[in-house]
Amino acid sequence: MGTVFANVSISLDGYIAGPNDSRENPLGDGGEQLHEWMVDTESWKDQHGHDGGETNRDSEIVAESNENVGAAIMGRRMFDNDEGPWGDDPFEGYWGDDPPFAVPVFVLTHHPREPLEMDGGTTFHFVTDGIERALKRASDTVDDEDIEIVGGATVIQQFIEAGLIDELQLHVVPVLLGDGIRLFESLDSDPIELERTRMVGSPDVTHLWFDVETDRNEQ
Amino acid sequence: MGTVFANVSISLDGYIAGPNDSRENPLGDGGEQLHEWMVDTESWKDQHGHDGGETNRDSEIVAESNENVGAAIMGRRMFDNDEGPWGDDPFEGYWGDDPPFAVPVFVLTHHPREPLEMDGGTTFHFVTDGIERALKRASDTVDDEDIEIVGGATVIQQFIEAGLIDELQLHVVPVLLGDGIRLFESLDSDPIELERTRMVGSPDVTHLWFDVETDRNEQ
Repeated sequence: MGTVFANVSISLDGYIAGPNDSRENPLGDGGEQLHEWMVDTESWKDQHGHDGGETNRDSEIVAESNENVGAAIMGRRMFDNDEGPWGDDPFEGYWGDDPPFAVPVFVLTHHPREPLEMDGGTTFHFVTDGIERALKRASDTVDDEDIEIVGGATVIQQFIEAGLIDELQLHVVPVLLGDGIRLFESLDSDPIELERTRMVGSPDVTHLWFDVETDRNEQ
Repeated sequence: MGTVFANVSISLDGYIAGPNDSRENPLGDGGEQLHEWMVDTESWKDQHGHDGGETNRDSEIVAESNENVGAAIMGRRMFDNDEGPWGDDPFEGYWGDDPPFAVPVFVLTHHPREPLEMDGGTTFHFVTDGIERALKRASDTVDDEDIEIVGGATVIQQFIEAGLIDELQLHVVPVLLGDGIRLFESLDSDPIELERTRMVGSPDVTHLWFDVETDRNEQ
């Protein structure tokens, strides 16, 4: 496989969503501010089945992050903002009939569920035996393509703590949200060294890339 | 007066000091990692009365931040890591006989104390009536020079929440400390918009400058 990475828009004070997130308000109060730079780009619109959009540096960065992704991993709450059992007629998630991933997506959950095949190449697979197993299953579906850890924050933290992530792509939005869901809550590990490999500034956002020194990277 | 600014080294996960800070361990466990990029520079060594050091981009940035500072403001804990009354023979603070400020420094405290004149131009003035009064007293000592809000985190937060700070200079060190003192704990205000005005990358640190949209700036 290629790189295992996370690609996250984050406020300057470290939040990836505002407070009071729910199924109806998945980004939390004010959280949409963190994505404004992205949703206006041609690349994002194209990925989500829309025409138009800005063709700028931000758009190139969105395209570049996505172009080699062969599989994705996300937490249950990022799929449907629920942690309960699935029920008899379960919700098919936030992502619509034709989700923007167009690759296999492995959803971490405590509750087994049959795979859910959507239009456009996205199939949700539900993994009940932890992040290492999810990564193994994702890696079995790719050749040299990348694997994106989509989120949420606790899933990305688990991958960092377990030394299973190679790269963080952070898009720092110049706002202090003051409350919400932090990307980096307290880590359950010793301090972790990174290396900033790249930086690009555009008017609305600061793009920073970090390599993570992990057990996996040292092998 | 010139600009009211804070100038802070911060981990990628938002900490400006590690856990377990004390008078003997003022930066907390692991907190010295956040300052390594700076203490090796010629500018920092010169400011602290030492010869030598690296003459690089980081050194230029340290010099530039300091060159127009006419007064400084800090919290009591940054002066001596204590919040109690001063006692009969009070500690003269962390900063030595010849502190690196060389300007008037206004220390926020609940306990009155006579001004403390040190060598080299630093006089500590103890202010018991809040941040606005400290800023007024600092501004009365300068012409068009800048005022630095040295810290700690809660003092910087108070200045941000009160709309009294113009600029944040953040030096982002690529480490996840995982615990300690956050620069941005929960803000007691609505979200605050900033504008990133400048960015400089050096191998060990990412320097970012932000203008803060404040009540003071709108006047």
